[in-house]
Amino acid sequence: MALIAMKFGGTSVGSVEKIRNVARIVADVKNQGNDVVVAVSAMSGETDRLVGLVNEVSPHANPREYDQVVSTGEQVTIGLLSLALQEMGHDAVSFTGWQMGMITDSAHTKARIEEIRADRIKKAISEGKAVIVAGFQGITQDTHDVATLGRGGSDTTAVAVAVGLNADRCDIYTDVDGVYTTDPRIVSEARRLKIISYDEMLEMASLGAKVLQTRSVEFAKKYNMPVRVRSTFKPEDDGTLVTTEEDPNMEQVMISGIAFNKNEAKITLTRVKDQPGLASTIFSAIAEKNVNVDVIIQNISPRGDGETDLSFTVPKNEAHNAVAAVQGLKDSHQIGDILLDEKVSKVSIVGAGMHSHAGVAAKMFTALADEGINIMMISTSEIKVSCVIAEKYTELAVRALHEAFELDKDGN
Amino acid sequence: MALIAMKFGGTSVGSVEKIRNVARIVADVKNQGNDVVVAVSAMSGETDRLVGLVNEVSPHANPREYDQVVSTGEQVTIGLLSLALQEMGHDAVSFTGWQMGMITDSAHTKARIEEIRADRIKKAISEGKAVIVAGFQGITQDTHDVATLGRGGSDTTAVAVAVGLNADRCDIYTDVDGVYTTDPRIVSEARRLKIISYDEMLEMASLGAKVLQTRSVEFAKKYNMPVRVRSTFKPEDDGTLVTTEEDPNMEQVMISGIAFNKNEAKITLTRVKDQPGLASTIFSAIAEKNVNVDVIIQNISPRGDGETDLSFTVPKNEAHNAVAAVQGLKDSHQIGDILLDEKVSKVSIVGAGMHSHAGVAAKMFTALADEGINIMMISTSEIKVSCVIAEKYTELAVRALHEAFELDKDGN
Repeated sequence: MALIAMKFGGTSVGSVEKIRNVARIVADVKNQGNDVVVAVSAMSGETDRLVGLVNEVSPHANPREYDQVVSTGEQVTIGLLSLALQEMGHDAVSFTGWQMGMITDSAHTKARIEEIRADRIKKAISEGKAVIVAGFQGITQDTHDVATLGRGGSDTTAVAVAVGLNADRCDIYTDVDGVYTTDPRIVSEARRLKIISYDEMLEMASLGAKVLQTRSVEFAKKYNMPVRVRSTFKPEDDGTLVTTEEDPNMEQVMISGIAFNKNEAKITLTRVKDQPGLASTIFSAIAEKNVNVDVIIQNISPRGDGETDLSFTVPKNEAHNAVAAVQGLKDSHQIGDILLDEKVSKVSIVGAGMHSHAGVAAKMFTALADEGINIMMISTSEIKVSCVIAEKYTELAVRALHEAFELDKDGN
Repeated sequence: MALIAMKFGGTSVGSVEKIRNVARIVADVKNQGNDVVVAVSAMSGETDRLVGLVNEVSPHANPREYDQVVSTGEQVTIGLLSLALQEMGHDAVSFTGWQMGMITDSAHTKARIEEIRADRIKKAISEGKAVIVAGFQGITQDTHDVATLGRGGSDTTAVAVAVGLNADRCDIYTDVDGVYTTDPRIVSEARRLKIISYDEMLEMASLGAKVLQTRSVEFAKKYNMPVRVRSTFKPEDDGTLVTTEEDPNMEQVMISGIAFNKNEAKITLTRVKDQPGLASTIFSAIAEKNVNVDVIIQNISPRGDGETDLSFTVPKNEAHNAVAAVQGLKDSHQIGDILLDEKVSKVSIVGAGMHSHAGVAAKMFTALADEGINIMMISTSEIKVSCVIAEKYTELAVRALHEAFELDKDGN
C-alpha cells in the first residue's frame, strides 16, 4: 500500500462533470489499496473571474485582500470534489490552506511555503479518508492571513504535501499526457519521454515548456520526490516520470529535448567603456525595475579602443522598462547607442547527458548553420546550450535540432 | 466617538458599483469620527450559484462540505469591500469567520454562535482600521471546520459582533427603509415606525414580515443591543430603531403593526377521544417529522360524548408530512377524519401596549366580523392576537385592521 499525492488543474475540474471524472480517478487509485491526498485548482475561468472583480474594484489591489478574494476558487473545488467522492461511497474530507496547516511567508500573491503542519491530514488519512486539499493557498505564519502561492501554485502545493507526508510519489494530472522531446505542434515526430531528470525538467520549464510549474520541480528535486506527469483524460497512461538522475531507470541519453522561448527581446549597448564596475551599474539599474535579465554577452574591446558592445535579453513585455533604466545612465556613463530588437527567440537543447559527451554544442551550431540560421548569442550550462536567433527561424530551428539529435528515435 | 456595527445584505453588495456605494456609506460613518465593524453577505445570486453547484454534485450533500463551498461567497465580498475602502484612502482589513474568532457549534448549515474571540477585530479597530467581516459563517469550536449560520445569518453575525465588541449600536442596511405598520404593497397608508420593541419585532418577523432574521432580534434582545433598520439606498434616513421597551424614546402605543402569514395550512382531526395523553402522542408523532406546529385549538367534548375535535396549523409545505404522521395513529387511537385545509392564512395584531389595554381582541374580532370574515382559530400572547381565516380574505382583513386601529395616524 502506497501513499500517493495527486494534483488536478483547473481544466481537469472545469465543470461538475469533469469533477466527477476526477473523483473516479481518485476512487480508482484508492480502490487499488492506496492512501490518497489530492490537491486541486479552481475551476477553469474562476480565478480569472475573481481577479477581474478585484481589478475592477482596485487596479493596484492590496495583496492581502487580493489573496482573500482569489483563494476562494480552490475552496469551492475541494468541497465539490469531496462531495463527488462521497456520492460514490468513498469517505472524503476537504481542507483549505489554513485547515491543512500550509504555512507560508507573508509575500502575498507569490508566497513561499515555509512548513506543513500536516497533523490534520495525517489523522484523516489514518481514518481511511481521501483527503482533498486546496492548491495555491496557505496561511501566513504570524498574522494568520490567507496567502496565495502565485499562478500555477497548485503544482507546488501537491509536491509540498507529498514531501510533508513522505508520500511515495506525486502524480500531476494535466491536459497533456506527459513531457515531450519538443512541442508536438511544431514537430509532429516529437516523442513523449518516459523519464526526465529534475534538472532537465527545470531547464525545459524555464525555457518555455509549460507542463509543470518551475517551483514545484525545484521542490521535488530538493526533497527527491518522484513526480509523474499524466493525463486526466487518459489516466491509465503512465505519462512521464520526473526524477533524480540517480534513478536506476534513468538511461543517460545525450539530449532529452528541444525547448524554445519566443518571449525574448535583445538589447544592445554600443561603445560601452570597458571599465570595471560598469556592467554592475547597468544591471543594478535594470534589476531595480524588477526586470529579469537572461542571456548576457560582452566582447572585450573588439575594436581595441577600450570600448565594447554589451548585449543581453529580457522578457519582451519588460523590454521598454529595461531600455528606460539604461537610458538614465546613457550620458553619465558615456554609453553609445541603445538598440532594441524585439524579434528574437531562444532555442535550447537540454540533456543531462551532454556534459559527458564532447561536441554537442558544435553539432547544434552546425545544424543551425546548415539551415542558414545566424546565431546572435550563445549561452551554456551543464545541461543545456541556448542560442538566440531571429524569431522567424524558431520553428525551422526546432525541427532541424530535433532531427539532428534524432529525438524521434526511441531514447527512453 | 462611537463604535458602530453595520450590516449590508446581498442586494446591497450585488455589483462592484454597489460595493463602492457601500464603501461610501461606511466611509461617511467613519469620517464622522466613529469606529466601524461591517458584516456583509455574499453578492446577490452568488450563494444560489454555489448551492446550485453543490446540489448538482450531491443532492443530499454532506453539510460540512456544503458549508466549505457555500461560505466562499462572503469571503469574496469582504475582500472587495475592503479594497473599495482602501481605494477611497481608508485603512481597512477583512476577516473571514475563522479570522474573526466567530466560534459556533457543529450544526453545519444552521450553526449557532457560541462565542466571539474578538481580539483580532479589537486590535485592528485600535489601529484605526475599518474592519470588514464575513457574515453567515463561523468556525466550529473543536474541529475547526467552516460552519454557516443558515440563510439570513449575516444579520445575526452583525448583532453578535456588535455585542461581542460592546458596540454602541448595530445598523442593518437593507433594501427597505425601515419597519412598517404592515406591508405597504397591501395597505398604501402603511406608515414607517420610528421605533419598535424587540418583542414586537420578533412577533412581526415570525409572522412573516421579513425585515430582520428572527435569530438576530433574539440575540439583540438578550444582550440589549439597539438595532437600527435602514436603507442602503437612502443612508441619510434614520429608519426604524429596534430596542427594549424600557427605552425612554419608546412611547407605549397599543398596536404597532399588522402581520400576516399565508404560509399556513390547517389540519383538523375529528372525533378524537378526550383522554389524557392523546394530544401528547399526536404532537410527538408530528414533531418526529420535524414539522413545526403553530396554532392549536381543542374544544372540550362539544357534543358531550367524550369526543372532541382538534385543529392545528403547520407551514403549507409541511402539511402532507404532518398528515402522514397523524395517519399512522388513526386506527390505533380511534381518530375520526383527518381534514386538511391549505387555503388558510393567519392575520395578527402586534403591540407591546396591548396588555395594558382592555378590549383589544374584541376590537379585532369586530373589525373582521364587519367585513364578513369568519374566524376559524384564535391564538393570543402578551403582545399579539392572531386569527386564522380563509386565505382569500387576507388583504381585506389586513386593510380593515390597519384602519380599525388607526395605524396610518402618527403613533411613534
